[in-house]
Amino acid sequence: MKIIKSVARMQSLSMQKRTEGKRIALVPTMGFFHAGHISLMTYARKRCDLLVVSIFVNPMQFGPSGDFERYPRDLKRDRVMAEKAGVDVLFCTSAQDMYPPGFQTHVEVERLTQPLCGQSRPGHFRGVTTVVTKLFNIVQPHEAVFGLKDYQQWLAIRRMAGDLNMAVKVTGRPIVREKDGLAMSSRNTYLSPAERKAALGLQQSLSMAKYLVRKGEKSPKRIKKTIKELITSYNSAKIEIEYVSFCHPETLDERDIIKDKTLLAIAARVGKTRLIDNCLLSPGE
Amino acid sequence: MKIIKSVARMQSLSMQKRTEGKRIALVPTMGFFHAGHISLMTYARKRCDLLVVSIFVNPMQFGPSGDFERYPRDLKRDRVMAEKAGVDVLFCTSAQDMYPPGFQTHVEVERLTQPLCGQSRPGHFRGVTTVVTKLFNIVQPHEAVFGLKDYQQWLAIRRMAGDLNMAVKVTGRPIVREKDGLAMSSRNTYLSPAERKAALGLQQSLSMAKYLVRKGEKSPKRIKKTIKELITSYNSAKIEIEYVSFCHPETLDERDIIKDKTLLAIAARVGKTRLIDNCLLSPGE
Repeated sequence: MKIIKSVARMQSLSMQKRTEGKRIALVPTMGFFHAGHISLMTYARKRCDLLVVSIFVNPMQFGPSGDFERYPRDLKRDRVMAEKAGVDVLFCTSAQDMYPPGFQTHVEVERLTQPLCGQSRPGHFRGVTTVVTKLFNIVQPHEAVFGLKDYQQWLAIRRMAGDLNMAVKVTGRPIVREKDGLAMSSRNTYLSPAERKAALGLQQSLSMAKYLVRKGEKSPKRIKKTIKELITSYNSAKIEIEYVSFCHPETLDERDIIKDKTLLAIAARVGKTRLIDNCLLSPGE
Repeated sequence: MKIIKSVARMQSLSMQKRTEGKRIALVPTMGFFHAGHISLMTYARKRCDLLVVSIFVNPMQFGPSGDFERYPRDLKRDRVMAEKAGVDVLFCTSAQDMYPPGFQTHVEVERLTQPLCGQSRPGHFRGVTTVVTKLFNIVQPHEAVFGLKDYQQWLAIRRMAGDLNMAVKVTGRPIVREKDGLAMSSRNTYLSPAERKAALGLQQSLSMAKYLVRKGEKSPKRIKKTIKELITSYNSAKIEIEYVSFCHPETLDERDIIKDKTLLAIAARVGKTRLIDNCLLSPGE
């Protein structure tokens, strides 16, 4: 496995591989790998000749909360895990190389980034779509693989790639969960044991909603009420719901009634840690 | 010469040529060719295997003034001229194909698009950088060639390509002028004979400024005064200056004193037609 730190070297390697007719796949990450990342790598590994995994904790997508400085990093561990997953190139770039002095260009997806996480994280998706555009241009992948825990992010990136005619297939892969159901996230390491328990409320809410919909419930309002009760009753540690949204899985428009396939997306703060989770509800299945 | 109307067909042709190791050049235009366009094609012709010229009057970069509907079009004539200039592919795309329903992504260069034409044409450069990103992704050129009459546009596009790591060389080529000095522009066809005469005021202002700087004048303020006098005294038809700017040729920051290489950029309305022109001032040369 090669470790490349320079943007220019990464881009010229990709260009060379392209001319050789090789198929390139990219898994963009912020590092601190967990089984979710590894599942993306394993999936991508089978679908390309050159598997590039990028690690970049992108300052542009963080708010002023200090989450950027706090974000966990462990390159040594990541290296071992990537090598084991069959990665060809670990592209570890730096903010200096990605945002040299004078940098002033942004890519923005408008409507899809407004609701859900867009409400509480202004500028976040703009930072994501900008850095992903850069990574696509540098690594020149035929396919890029993202985790569906960040469903809205995946949707925005897929929209961006389509709108801007990027020749990249944007693939979303299922959420990987801990044994008890908690969605894997690098931010889970922030949780105290009590918070870790409380965090299960998110996944339990999804299960509850699925159950209710299977039983014929069609009202987002009633399900939301149940979910809020469940979360607050179940947990002793502080868990604060940011949003519970029942929305169209392509447009993210809020649904009044659950008749067709619906995305249920949840965000909550558990202590100081912001967690998200989601699932698709398919009434009548 | 091939005429391609579909985005998908253009992109797949470019991909094929790329795999064959061919060098692609793109001249993005809005059609209604004049000698300025032809000079870009002639330049690009020598530097590539596949010369693509795009014609697209991009609704997104026009304001609500009706200039978009009014913009001159003559595909029949453009075809003949392009063929003669050795163009391989004339890519004539449509707004439906470029902006399908649900389109919502934009590319924006921030600081460079604020001054000069950015002041009177809000959203213009955002429309330009978005469509050029799309054209770059569709045509996948190694080099794209622009005219320097639209100096600010060229600067913004070059900045965008650099900031987003697009693997495209963005080349700017000198302004081509009519015999009497008027900068070539498709919009010149709008001018009445009296307006056509008045329009010469722009180029005369540039000449005057060059003369004054050669004589040792360093004050933008004093040169501006002379230019305004020259323009208003010389012309009987209505000509209204929008801006006269002496600025840094890379950052477009306004200059207080002309010591180093300086861009002089002018915009004016002649009747209903908005014209621009510019030159580089090199004191001490």
